[in-house]
Amino acid sequence: MEVAAAVDPAPDKAGRELAEVCALDKDTGIVVADNFAAAIRAVQPEAAILTTLLSFKACVPQVEEIIKHGIPVVSTCEEMLCPWLTEPELAQQLDEAAKKQEVAVLGIGVNPGFLMDFLPTIMTGVCQEVKSIKVTRRQDATFRRIPFQQKIGVGLTIREFEAKREQGSLRHVGLTESLHMIAMALGWELEKTEDVISPIIAEREITTGYKTVRPGLAAGVQQIGNGYVNGAPVITLVFKASVGESNPGDTIEIKGTPDITSHIAGGVNGDIATCAITVNAVKSILKAPAGLRMMIDMPAVSFFESTK
Amino acid sequence: MEVAAAVDPAPDKAGRELAEVCALDKDTGIVVADNFAAAIRAVQPEAAILTTLLSFKACVPQVEEIIKHGIPVVSTCEEMLCPWLTEPELAQQLDEAAKKQEVAVLGIGVNPGFLMDFLPTIMTGVCQEVKSIKVTRRQDATFRRIPFQQKIGVGLTIREFEAKREQGSLRHVGLTESLHMIAMALGWELEKTEDVISPIIAEREITTGYKTVRPGLAAGVQQIGNGYVNGAPVITLVFKASVGESNPGDTIEIKGTPDITSHIAGGVNGDIATCAITVNAVKSILKAPAGLRMMIDMPAVSFFESTK
Repeated sequence: MEVAAAVDPAPDKAGRELAEVCALDKDTGIVVADNFAAAIRAVQPEAAILTTLLSFKACVPQVEEIIKHGIPVVSTCEEMLCPWLTEPELAQQLDEAAKKQEVAVLGIGVNPGFLMDFLPTIMTGVCQEVKSIKVTRRQDATFRRIPFQQKIGVGLTIREFEAKREQGSLRHVGLTESLHMIAMALGWELEKTEDVISPIIAEREITTGYKTVRPGLAAGVQQIGNGYVNGAPVITLVFKASVGESNPGDTIEIKGTPDITSHIAGGVNGDIATCAITVNAVKSILKAPAGLRMMIDMPAVSFFESTK
Repeated sequence: MEVAAAVDPAPDKAGRELAEVCALDKDTGIVVADNFAAAIRAVQPEAAILTTLLSFKACVPQVEEIIKHGIPVVSTCEEMLCPWLTEPELAQQLDEAAKKQEVAVLGIGVNPGFLMDFLPTIMTGVCQEVKSIKVTRRQDATFRRIPFQQKIGVGLTIREFEAKREQGSLRHVGLTESLHMIAMALGWELEKTEDVISPIIAEREITTGYKTVRPGLAAGVQQIGNGYVNGAPVITLVFKASVGESNPGDTIEIKGTPDITSHIAGGVNGDIATCAITVNAVKSILKAPAGLRMMIDMPAVSFFESTK
């Protein structure tokens, strides 16, 4: 796989050598274009990777701009993972546009996209019966990039945390979409979903993050998603991210026949993994049926290389 | 999903009520037919599940018999998981026959089919680089059916074990196919594979299996599969099954960027899980492109129900 072109309309990026913008070791021979049509003028890329916004609504026009050239799209847009229940009309519209162009469009990432939704979904494949699914992702944010630490509220007072939560700027986006994708795969109709955010409060001084967190301040966020059937939560997603979080890891607990508990000790680093799965998905999107796809209805994504 | 028909040419099964043959609680209204054409005379099933033999060569005529009626096949045939490198011509022949009939054919199971191949393959999806993969399945055979305990040599003398190994009747079938499927997904060309079987010898008397095993006799089997690139094993599959096996579980270790270690404590019971994944695969085979498919190039298999 080769990078054929790059697009970013931001004035500090457009017009510059890609290697400079991305701090690569050597020049790529690619100048960042300020729009998609200009970028592909000289090349006919086989696929595009779109890593711009988390809102599905905001991403749809960007995807439409790309697929009208007959190019499939892999996007890290969190809400594109499974927009069928949250934005049914817009999802339908994009699906039809993609089918008309005979290309596939996919929303993917490590979370949402893999750890808390796709992986537990395929784990149920060995079950004769599934009563409930619980997924817990505990991350020590110490090892995540600074924008991520800021996003989860590290060092905020509880009042500041609450204010940001009200604005909607402090949250993991995609928990609802993860609930919906699991439920769609299993044939469950959720009567209600909820997504509850609260601060994780430092009990002692924490100095491992990008700034020191004194006791009583927010060390991070806890977010719980529930999907209900017959008044009871059948899918529970627990997302915890804080600096100094103990026992980081990704745990899947399926109650059914048989019960299955799977654990990834230490968890999966979201920054590394999101880049990886996005690039790895290109192989699969080229084989996927046309339309707006989900991870659960297309060929599996895996690492691949052609040189070994 | 509903059972529409049943076929078994064995004289002690053909002609009897399915409920009687399978020890079900109540009658199904289905009489076991002795051949496929007779079984589907009155019904047009959407898919067939074939659970007869472990040899791909032996299963191909059976699959061809079914698909000529335009019916897709999910099979537990171990060697059908990935016959592209072990039986390339026959695989090609079956692939073409399935494409001509516009149906998909799939070999599946929990192992081979999921725990030691599909699951580690999709785990690499979050890796930017993969250097090696090791999968260890440790099973306490105490909780498996008697034919399984016999298959792994429980209670044999070492001489009897060696004799059975030479005959080829004492082994887990599919390790080579698992190696091949992982490698094909990752784009690795294995220059060599090996599959080494040895007895696990009881160190103390074990009374938990279907018969008592005295110290010095075989308590089960250890089988190791290796796939090599550049003279070094890059994929290692360790299959251990014995009565009284300590620390049963399924472990995946990926060395790469990032390293990932995933563990299913206690492991997954193969008898329950094989039935489950075979039935669950029917949903996916109906959506899969025509041809001889592998788990890695078709929509994901998960549990599903239509009533919740």
